Amino acid sequence: MLPGAVREYIESHAGELLSRLCELLRIPGVANETPPDDHCRRAAEWLAAHMRSIGLASAVVPTAGKPAVLAEARAGADSPTLLVYCHYDVQPPDPLAEWKSHPFEPVVRDGYVYARGASDDKGPLMAYLLAVEAYLRAGGLPVNVKFFVEGEEEIGSPNAEPFLVEHRGRLAADAAVVADTSFFARGVPSITYGLRGLAYFEVALSRPASDVHSGTHGGAVANPIHALAQLIAAMHDEAGRVTIDAFYDDVLPTTDEERKAWGKLPFDEAAYAASLGIERLAGGESGLGVLERIWARPTADCNGIFGGYTGLGSKTIIPARASAKVSMRLVPRQEPDKIVSAFRRFVAAHTPPSMKSSVSVQSASRPVLVPTGSPVVEAGRRALREAFGREAAMIRCGASVPATECIQRVLGIDTLVMGCTLPDDNHHAPNERYSLEMLHGTAVAAAALMQNLGQTGRMD
Amino acid sequence: MLPGAVREYIESHAGELLSRLCELLRIPGVANETPPDDHCRRAAEWLAAHMRSIGLASAVVPTAGKPAVLAEARAGADSPTLLVYCHYDVQPPDPLAEWKSHPFEPVVRDGYVYARGASDDKGPLMAYLLAVEAYLRAGGLPVNVKFFVEGEEEIGSPNAEPFLVEHRGRLAADAAVVADTSFFARGVPSITYGLRGLAYFEVALSRPASDVHSGTHGGAVANPIHALAQLIAAMHDEAGRVTIDAFYDDVLPTTDEERKAWGKLPFDEAAYAASLGIERLAGGESGLGVLERIWARPTADCNGIFGGYTGLGSKTIIPARASAKVSMRLVPRQEPDKIVSAFRRFVAAHTPPSMKSSVSVQSASRPVLVPTGSPVVEAGRRALREAFGREAAMIRCGASVPATECIQRVLGIDTLVMGCTLPDDNHHAPNERYSLEMLHGTAVAAAALMQNLGQTGRMD
Repeated sequence: MLPGAVREYIESHAGELLSRLCELLRIPGVANETPPDDHCRRAAEWLAAHMRSIGLASAVVPTAGKPAVLAEARAGADSPTLLVYCHYDVQPPDPLAEWKSHPFEPVVRDGYVYARGASDDKGPLMAYLLAVEAYLRAGGLPVNVKFFVEGEEEIGSPNAEPFLVEHRGRLAADAAVVADTSFFARGVPSITYGLRGLAYFEVALSRPASDVHSGTHGGAVANPIHALAQLIAAMHDEAGRVTIDAFYDDVLPTTDEERKAWGKLPFDEAAYAASLGIERLAGGESGLGVLERIWARPTADCNGIFGGYTGLGSKTIIPARASAKVSMRLVPRQEPDKIVSAFRRFVAAHTPPSMKSSVSVQSASRPVLVPTGSPVVEAGRRALREAFGREAAMIRCGASVPATECIQRVLGIDTLVMGCTLPDDNHHAPNERYSLEMLHGTAVAAAALMQNLGQTGRMD
Repeated sequence: MLPGAVREYIESHAGELLSRLCELLRIPGVANETPPDDHCRRAAEWLAAHMRSIGLASAVVPTAGKPAVLAEARAGADSPTLLVYCHYDVQPPDPLAEWKSHPFEPVVRDGYVYARGASDDKGPLMAYLLAVEAYLRAGGLPVNVKFFVEGEEEIGSPNAEPFLVEHRGRLAADAAVVADTSFFARGVPSITYGLRGLAYFEVALSRPASDVHSGTHGGAVANPIHALAQLIAAMHDEAGRVTIDAFYDDVLPTTDEERKAWGKLPFDEAAYAASLGIERLAGGESGLGVLERIWARPTADCNGIFGGYTGLGSKTIIPARASAKVSMRLVPRQEPDKIVSAFRRFVAAHTPPSMKSSVSVQSASRPVLVPTGSPVVEAGRRALREAFGREAAMIRCGASVPATECIQRVLGIDTLVMGCTLPDDNHHAPNERYSLEMLHGTAVAAAALMQNLGQTGRMD
């Protein structure tokens, strides 16, 4: 049970929590940013300063990319240590025109705070920090707490693994909690035991020289947009299966037990579609259930495409170049390196003789399955029950939090992926939001998790 | 023969011609521009003022789109009247990064003036005006001259036909010359007797609501980029033929005589490819010669494509929308209206049930064949011989100058499409240029055309 003073502190500081979150949300740190933009560093420094102000030792620590923030507050040598993972970077706000309010000027409407990063992942991060603050003000922490707050999660955490290797000692802990996933549904607290991996590419097709006049030369000069369209069209067959050679070779088959367990979840396909504003779900492999398609099957999606003239009105050219962003979500047993090679071969095979192709790998991270019987997962279940009054559902998630797998593998510790947002929070989309109820509940659940983990004693 | 005083005036005013052209080139009037940009109006007003300064009556005349400039200089009631068609609008300058100098800051390098619009079509326009000026200074014009200078040629002349209908009386003439096409090759003066038509579309595919997270929902939500890629890929078969139903139904077959005549032109496929900077010609229908493919066969090209995230780095979304600019070059007997309907049906047939599609027609203009035996074409042949010292080649052109067909049909007069630029002038592409030699030669040819036409007498 959560100490009364801790719960009271959290409840009486809802206003402070929201106003601090809004301060952080106003710093538009997108991991893709390039100089002179330096919002990520500003966000990291704001965070480290805030952590110090509530009593943690903290530091902004460089990586090969955007800096990470490390912090620590100690309970005592006999206490177990919990490593909290969050990220301060956010997705790009595009398309800007679809936002009802400015993505970096948070506003509260109908019980939600709207801003890019509100729920992914600044809100959960600030909730966990309030939980630590509550213990520090109420007499002390039940566990040692360390924070690893990354600045590159949204670009696939390319530097997380080397960072963890380099700072293995400083990050040593008995267990980790990843605070970056959703509930299965509103009112259904959830622990995620599986996340997909990610391989993200930029592919370009080009022919030599410049754009040419599409009238004068139309019929004589090959068109890279056509070739790229053919490549993308060839990526799936009519049944929605990815056609890239060897793509499914290593996929871990879904077990009957899992299918049975997922069948018991309160899932309504029509309601899910409605939550996305669409009429019919039409992605993925035909013949499989929706949850299996998004949780346990790999997918390939074109995330962006660009070529030729895209301004207002018309321009009559055959462009010299077209490019696309293509990413794949990977499931357990698929190895990103093998998928990268397979995609390179696929692109080469679909490059016409008159053109050149290039493939750049933006990120590649492994899928992960998290053991469900560990003490930290058990502590998480109890924490969710205490904070939200219902038993946690054990779910998978189609998204990727690459650090999860790295933490498990590099630090060799059990990890809990405890839900802290809602599935209709518009992650990565315009009008991202976080419900104030979930912001508060996550602070309570975080505090309860620390308490429960403290009661299990040092777990070595 | 051109009067000596006229030739001398043209030769002694090469510097003025270039400096005036550069003044006009500095006004970046792209017909696609929207308020507050008003460069087209500025260009039209600059032009009308310049015309007045050299002795023409001129006016900026509104259309439903960008204004036209009309001008006139009279020789006398007994003289025939020549209508000169040019356009002052230019293609958008994108992609800007590929220009070696600023597209709207003309520079002279190695005998060329480089700027957007240098050869298409401001250079030829200024050359024709110098020819008129030379006659006016040297004692009088051999023909009445009227100018119709359009501001929307580069977007397919959507208002040319209604404008010609409305101002039919004011534009009445005995013959017209279109000054907006190229020589077949350097040193090969050319008269164009066939131009392709144009149907230009913007097509969009979308599903309801916003972009969604490609991890969380990847496998459940259909991707409009994939559907658009499939649509574009389906536009051609493996032999390079357009698959749109009924697309070739009305195509006028190439005659053996034409093929034979084209076979005698000094055409070298490798040199043509090299002039475009490419190694191999790979567009159009297989099994047909290059000239037939670009001159006498219709084509379909995607001129631009855009969807999802196109910024730096990665963003993991399934976008809600993707769009493309698609245009078709039409050949004689194809009716733009029939092609528009056929493309609408094609798009509808390739729109997945989970998506909506939209097709907007940006422009639609007819192909044209110009009679080759008319007095004005004969006057043009002699003018080219006098200006360039070689017999003119009779060629077709894959590009479109929609006003050509409208002038023939609405005004009911013979038209001459007399070459005034070089095929490697980078029309519509970065680093557009105009050779000073062609600028001068075109002024001479224009003056000779007027002289020759004056000698034929009033042609009614």
